Amino acid sequence: MKFRRSERLIDMTNYLLEHPHQLVSLTFFSERYGSAKSSISEDLAIIKETFEQRNIGTLQTVPGAAGGVRFHVKVSDEEARSFIKELCELIASPERLLPGGYLYMTDILGDPTIVQRAGRLFASAYADTKIDVVMTVATKGIPLAYAVANYLNVPVVIVRRDSKVTEGSTVSINYVSGSAKRIQTMLLSKRSLEEGSRVLIVDDFMKAGGTVNGMVSMLEEFKAYVAGIAVLVEAEKAEERLVDEYLSLVRLSDVDVKEKKINVGEGNYFKRSIEGGKSV
Amino acid sequence: MKFRRSERLIDMTNYLLEHPHQLVSLTFFSERYGSAKSSISEDLAIIKETFEQRNIGTLQTVPGAAGGVRFHVKVSDEEARSFIKELCELIASPERLLPGGYLYMTDILGDPTIVQRAGRLFASAYADTKIDVVMTVATKGIPLAYAVANYLNVPVVIVRRDSKVTEGSTVSINYVSGSAKRIQTMLLSKRSLEEGSRVLIVDDFMKAGGTVNGMVSMLEEFKAYVAGIAVLVEAEKAEERLVDEYLSLVRLSDVDVKEKKINVGEGNYFKRSIEGGKSV
Repeated sequence: MKFRRSERLIDMTNYLLEHPHQLVSLTFFSERYGSAKSSISEDLAIIKETFEQRNIGTLQTVPGAAGGVRFHVKVSDEEARSFIKELCELIASPERLLPGGYLYMTDILGDPTIVQRAGRLFASAYADTKIDVVMTVATKGIPLAYAVANYLNVPVVIVRRDSKVTEGSTVSINYVSGSAKRIQTMLLSKRSLEEGSRVLIVDDFMKAGGTVNGMVSMLEEFKAYVAGIAVLVEAEKAEERLVDEYLSLVRLSDVDVKEKKINVGEGNYFKRSIEGGKSV
Repeated sequence: MKFRRSERLIDMTNYLLEHPHQLVSLTFFSERYGSAKSSISEDLAIIKETFEQRNIGTLQTVPGAAGGVRFHVKVSDEEARSFIKELCELIASPERLLPGGYLYMTDILGDPTIVQRAGRLFASAYADTKIDVVMTVATKGIPLAYAVANYLNVPVVIVRRDSKVTEGSTVSINYVSGSAKRIQTMLLSKRSLEEGSRVLIVDDFMKAGGTVNGMVSMLEEFKAYVAGIAVLVEAEKAEERLVDEYLSLVRLSDVDVKEKKINVGEGNYFKRSIEGGKSV
């Protein structure tokens, strides 16, 4: 069966979007469509150009016999800025204020579109960092962790606060929660992480950073490395901050329960060219 | 700026894949590319044909002034069968056996590719069912719930087993876990579910169905409806089953700890034309 160029372009677009960060050989496409490699090359040039113009992502070309193309999501600063602005407006709504100055964010984290878009931003920021695994802690960070991992084509490991029989043997550590200064425990299934893995830590919220710091200690137990830290929202408490190098989309600078006011602004996402996306 | 057909096809494919179950008007595309509606119609006809031939999904055309196109994922029985077969082989590995006859599935649920593909299957099965929300219970069902919800373009609500201050006020119910016959509690944030919502319940594993049944009781508290029940793996214990109408991809029929043997087979996914995908 022969395919017209238009059909190939549609199917290749779908295939590449569904297989980010994977090397796809020209031979694969050439056999898939029964087309000459030269035609496939031309198709890929058109896709590459359109992906870049429309801010869908980049198409890396790997030359040689074992070569092919690799798709990475790439978010323009303009798109990132407009998404972060939307997010700030959503979060600033006074109805989110809960007793004790906590914020209700369940609806935001329950919206797959928002979670996917946030995941795209982080995947774009860490596109050139070598990452083997995304790690998060149950429960709220899980959707964002999967969104990022999906775009980076790596597995997710979930640290838990309680032991479950279905996890098999676990490694457990104690850590100090940064804001409440309480000793807490977290566990990770022994077989879920290989020694030497390069890990991107993802979470929905970071205050003083105790939980993130706990995950960093957990990585040490597994002889694994921190490849990056990505949080959706950080609370500005710099004087107590336990974690230095991280990326955030939104920064919560002031929550005034009495006045029902929430001050939110851009996180440090755009400063990543200087300090983010590196290994720590 | 004018766009060539090839560029439009690539960008429209990306746009439709990123906006499943959303009505996109011809005017939107026509303005996006500065092209005549007749050209856009031709583009969409090519995309529709390719999507169907390559089993990417279907493109519904809604006629009239408020009309447009809507993309649904659609998985062919052949693709579903091959994926379920892969899943069965993965699960049948004897190393998964844990003390007590439990199965280690953390790596499977931690693989975003597997979770996305499973999500596609369920989204395809429930594509024609009116669904407002996907519901799951923390923790293991969360990634699958988001995968399904993403393809159906609906939010996710997560039932918890413990109360968290960030959830605001909650509704709590007691339920009997089917296999252990223990009384347990589950909670859902009060503002997370609207009255009258049509809810698809998603979980990773169902034994006798106590947890799923608990979620059904929770829906009654919220005056919401069960639009469907989807589980990745069911354990065959039909005589005690508390839940009747559901879809499963994999059925675990026998776990022999002594012989280190796990018997797995196809779930009831392919019987859905008779009984599944309906409201209960």
